[in-house]
Amino acid sequence: MALVAEIGKEEKGPERTGLEPLTALVSEDLQAVNRLIVVHMDSPVALIPQLAGHIIAAGGKRLRPMLTLAAAKLCGYRGERHLGLAACVEFIHTATLLHDDVVDASDLRRGLATANAVWGNKPSVLVGDFLFSRAFQLMVADGSLDVLRILSNASAVIAEGEVLQLMTANDTSSDERAYMEVVEAKTAALFAAACRIGAVVAERPEAEELALENFGRDLGIAFQLVDDVLDYSALQADLGKSVGDDFRDGKITLPVVLAFQRANQDEKTFWRRCLEDQEHQEGDLEKAIALMQRHDALADSMAKAREYAVSARDALERFPEGPAKAALREIVDFCVGRAY
Amino acid sequence: MALVAEIGKEEKGPERTGLEPLTALVSEDLQAVNRLIVVHMDSPVALIPQLAGHIIAAGGKRLRPMLTLAAAKLCGYRGERHLGLAACVEFIHTATLLHDDVVDASDLRRGLATANAVWGNKPSVLVGDFLFSRAFQLMVADGSLDVLRILSNASAVIAEGEVLQLMTANDTSSDERAYMEVVEAKTAALFAAACRIGAVVAERPEAEELALENFGRDLGIAFQLVDDVLDYSALQADLGKSVGDDFRDGKITLPVVLAFQRANQDEKTFWRRCLEDQEHQEGDLEKAIALMQRHDALADSMAKAREYAVSARDALERFPEGPAKAALREIVDFCVGRAY
Repeated sequence: MALVAEIGKEEKGPERTGLEPLTALVSEDLQAVNRLIVVHMDSPVALIPQLAGHIIAAGGKRLRPMLTLAAAKLCGYRGERHLGLAACVEFIHTATLLHDDVVDASDLRRGLATANAVWGNKPSVLVGDFLFSRAFQLMVADGSLDVLRILSNASAVIAEGEVLQLMTANDTSSDERAYMEVVEAKTAALFAAACRIGAVVAERPEAEELALENFGRDLGIAFQLVDDVLDYSALQADLGKSVGDDFRDGKITLPVVLAFQRANQDEKTFWRRCLEDQEHQEGDLEKAIALMQRHDALADSMAKAREYAVSARDALERFPEGPAKAALREIVDFCVGRAY
Repeated sequence: MALVAEIGKEEKGPERTGLEPLTALVSEDLQAVNRLIVVHMDSPVALIPQLAGHIIAAGGKRLRPMLTLAAAKLCGYRGERHLGLAACVEFIHTATLLHDDVVDASDLRRGLATANAVWGNKPSVLVGDFLFSRAFQLMVADGSLDVLRILSNASAVIAEGEVLQLMTANDTSSDERAYMEVVEAKTAALFAAACRIGAVVAERPEAEELALENFGRDLGIAFQLVDDVLDYSALQADLGKSVGDDFRDGKITLPVVLAFQRANQDEKTFWRRCLEDQEHQEGDLEKAIALMQRHDALADSMAKAREYAVSARDALERFPEGPAKAALREIVDFCVGRAY
C-alpha cells in the first residue's frame, strides 16, 4: 500500500499558480476526501486496493472532487456530505481512466505506467467496475436521489461519449460538431455533475444548480480542448508528458479537424495515411505538428478553449464574491493557461 | 437493429421442462421487461444498441429478471415497479457478461460469437459501462433507496468476486473455501439481489426479504456449481455449447479442486502443467475429464449443488403455496437438472 501513501502528495514540476487558490480553499476538505478514498477503495480482495491505489495515487490534481468541494463552499454549505460525494466523483473518474486504459493501449499516463500496463486488461476492467459500484454505494449512503440522478445520468453520458469517440476515431470526415459532442459527453458531463452536486447538498435553488452545471460543463470543454492541443505541443514533452498519443490512436480532435479542413490534397493524403490507415513513418508527428501550426489549427483550438473559459466565468456571476468564487475563477485560468 | 428483434425469441434445442412453469407464470411481465430493455438500451450512438442488442438477444433464458418477477408475484405484488427493476437486473448481468468477455477471450457464449470477438475489447467495456449506468438510472427513476442499496452492494460484490477469481486462477493450491467465496460473489450475489427486490417492491417484512435473498443465493450457488460441472461434461458439447473453457483459462472450479486434492503425484504434475503453466497438449481435456470421473470430482460437485438446491427450496417454506412458489421450486430443479 506504499502507493496509497502518495495520495495527496504535492506534484513536482513546473506548474502554473492558478491551481493554488483552489487547493488552499479546499485543502482540509480534500485531506478528508483522500482519507475516505483510501477507506472505501479497500477490499479483502488484495488486488483491488493495490491496483486502485496505484491509479488513484497517480491521479494528479484531484480537480473534479475539488470542484465539488469548492462548489459546495460557494453555495455556503456547512455540512460534511460534500466529502463523500467528492470521493464518489473521484471514483467515477478513476473507473473511467481504468477502462480507458484498457482500450487505448496508452503506455504512460501522467508519467507513471498505467494500471493496464502493469496488471493487464482484466484487472483494470474489474477494479474499474468495483470503484464504480463503490461510488453508487457512497451515493446511496448519502441518500439523495437528486445526487444519484445527476451522477447516474453523467455516467451514462460519459459511456456514450467514449463509444462515440471510438466511432469517430480514424475517420477524417468526422467534423467539429462530432468532436464537440464527444468532448461534452466524455469530459464535460462529469465536470458539470461534480459542480452541480455542490449546490444540491447546500439545498440551493435550481437556478444555482444549473449555473454551476453550466460552469462545470464549459470548464470541462475548455479543459479537454487544451488537453487535445497539448497532445501536439512540444512544451508537453518538456513537462515529462507524452506527446502524440492521440495522433497514434487516430483520435479526431479539434486540431486535427481544423488542419484537415484547411489541408491541400497532399496534406489530406498524409492525414488519411496516418489517421485512417494508421501507417506511421519516422517524422510523421513532427510533420503533423508543423501542418497544424501552418494552418493555425492549434491557435484556433486554443481560441475556442478561451471562449468556453469566458462562458464558464460568466456562469459564476450570480454567486457572491469571496474566496470560493475567486478560486473557481482562477481554476478556469489554470485550465486554459496550461498550454503556454 | 435486426438482432433486437430476436429478443424474447424462443430458444431452440433440447431443454428440460423445469423452466416452463416459471416462464408461463411471468410470460406477460417478461414481454413488458423485454420492451423496457429495448427502450432503455437505446442511444443516439448507434454502436450501443447494436452491441447491446447482440448480447441481450443472445442472452438466453432471462433467468435473473424472471426471478425478480416471480419473487414479486410470490409476495403478492400488484404494481409495475418490478418490471423496470427486472430490466435493471438484466442490464447489470449483461454488463458483467460484456466485461467478462473482454477478459476471458472465450470464443463462444451460448453458441453466438461474443460481442468482444465481433467488435473488440474497447466497445465491450464501454457498452458494459453504459448498461451499468442505465441500470442505475432505472433504479433512480424507481426511487427506492432500498433497491439502490441492494443492487449497488451486489454490484460491488460481483466485481470483488471477479477479481478474486482472477487471483485464484492458475493456482492449484486454491481450495474449496476460496472457490465458494468466488461463486457467492460473482454469481450468487446477483441471484440473491434479484429475488430480494421482489419482496422490497411488495413492501413485505424484512424476514421475507431475507428469505428470498437466501433462496436466490443458494439457487445461484447451485446454478454455478452445475455450470462448472458442465464445463467438463460431454453432454455440454451435444447441446452445441463449448466444453473446456474453464480448463483452458486455468479457472480453479470445484471439480478441479476435488480432482487435485485426490490426485497422485503424476496427476498433480498433469494439473500443474495444464492449469499453472498453461501448457496444453492434444488430449489434455479428455484426460482431465477422465481424472475427474475417476476421483468422483464431478459427481461430488453435483452432490454439493443438490445440497444448495435443498436449502434454496427450504427458504421458500414461509411463503404460501401457489403457482409462484411452485414455479420457483421447479426452477431449482431445472438449475440442478441441467447436468443430466
